[in-house]
Amino acid sequence: MKDKTTLIVESGDYDKIYSAFIIANGSLAMGMDVSMYFTFWGLNRLKKNKLDKGPLSKMNFLGLGKLFMKWKMKKANVRSLEEMLNDFVQLGGKIFACDMTMDILGIEKEDLREEIITDFCAVGTYIKEARESEITLYI
Amino acid sequence: MKDKTTLIVESGDYDKIYSAFIIANGSLAMGMDVSMYFTFWGLNRLKKNKLDKGPLSKMNFLGLGKLFMKWKMKKANVRSLEEMLNDFVQLGGKIFACDMTMDILGIEKEDLREEIITDFCAVGTYIKEARESEITLYI
Amino acid sequence: MKDKTTLIVESGDYDKIYSAFIIANGSLAMGMDVSMYFTFWGLNRLKKNKLDKGPLSKMNFLGLGKLFMKWKMKKANVRSLEEMLNDFVQLGGKIFACDMTMDILGIEKEDLREEIITDFCAVGTYIKEARESEITLYI
Repeated sequence: MKDKTTLIVESGDYDKIYSAFIIANGSLAMGMDVSMYFTFWGLNRLKKNKLDKGPLSKMNFLGLGKLFMKWKMKKANVRSLEEMLNDFVQLGGKIFACDMTMDILGIEKEDLREEIITDFCAVGTYIKEARESEITLYI
Repeated sequence: MKDKTTLIVESGDYDKIYSAFIIANGSLAMGMDVSMYFTFWGLNRLKKNKLDKGPLSKMNFLGLGKLFMKWKMKKANVRSLEEMLNDFVQLGGKIFACDMTMDILGIEKEDLREEIITDFCAVGTYIKEARESEITLYI
Repeated sequence: MKDKTTLIVESGDYDKIYSAFIIANGSLAMGMDVSMYFTFWGLNRLKKNKLDKGPLSKMNFLGLGKLFMKWKMKKANVRSLEEMLNDFVQLGGKIFACDMTMDILGIEKEDLREEIITDFCAVGTYIKEARESEITLYI
């Protein structure tokens, strides 16, 4: 059995999603399988045009206006969430959307970026993958 | 050895506790053992009459007044935290209360819902269970 | 192979860092190896004079002025973050600083408490340790 990393992404915070993709892509780069389960505010970020749009307000909420500028300035070297998501999918990572979240938050399939979602599913799918994973994190 | 899921519930946020119980009950339904360790704001939610009372203000804090209404409307289909807690205990899940949190936050045993708590304990009990678990999450 | 606990500390919240060290030192006390990876707001706390300075404002932000007083009163019995960090290092725990965070937040090596940091490193180091760990948490 191949090593596996399975992440739940519940947070919609830019920095947390950022670190989720760093761990996910790092795991892929080291030859592991990776599954990411997006729920609640994490899933909300997989709506069309939401992934890189969010940071500004989130940053401001944290009083990080200046930091955001710095971030932007560094952008040449630091990949965007959008780029990291693309890397993830192209390297064979799987993205699962929590269907219960869709019910609760009133999200329809066509609101989401279906082209990058491997499957819409419930908690059973998560547990099946997580119990055979070396790394399990809730982010 | 049976597969096991061990969760630390540190957050008092409604949505996070909700997802903790979804994972916990899903694990039980798939034949795994499950232990939940409640600390800090998570433990605070196990005070009498706190579990389902909390959401409204938390939701408003997030600017989710409308969402809460939606949630309520869907309630026929989505189980409440109270119901999920009852399912968890009846299916044999274990709930542990962090005694250090009780010291720090000034919580007495009689403030808590003792009937659903398996044991009051320290970090050693957590580690003993977690190191033999397939799924370990910090929520 | 010895049992291992590997923690990512992304949060800068006093209570979360507190519980990270409780788990870390508890694991060491039970004979496990422990690695802690500090990223984002967690790493920010490893700047000089930041570890125990932070709590007051964070506590106030949560409306916990009174609680903080209580905490202080209990201090004779409850160890400070500073003491727990010292215990951790002396018991052989390893602290890793995320170098990408340093780039993004503009943190220099000399801003950090270099004497307690085992290494400055990237995600690969984390994954190498985490995939052979029994307990992996994201805090």
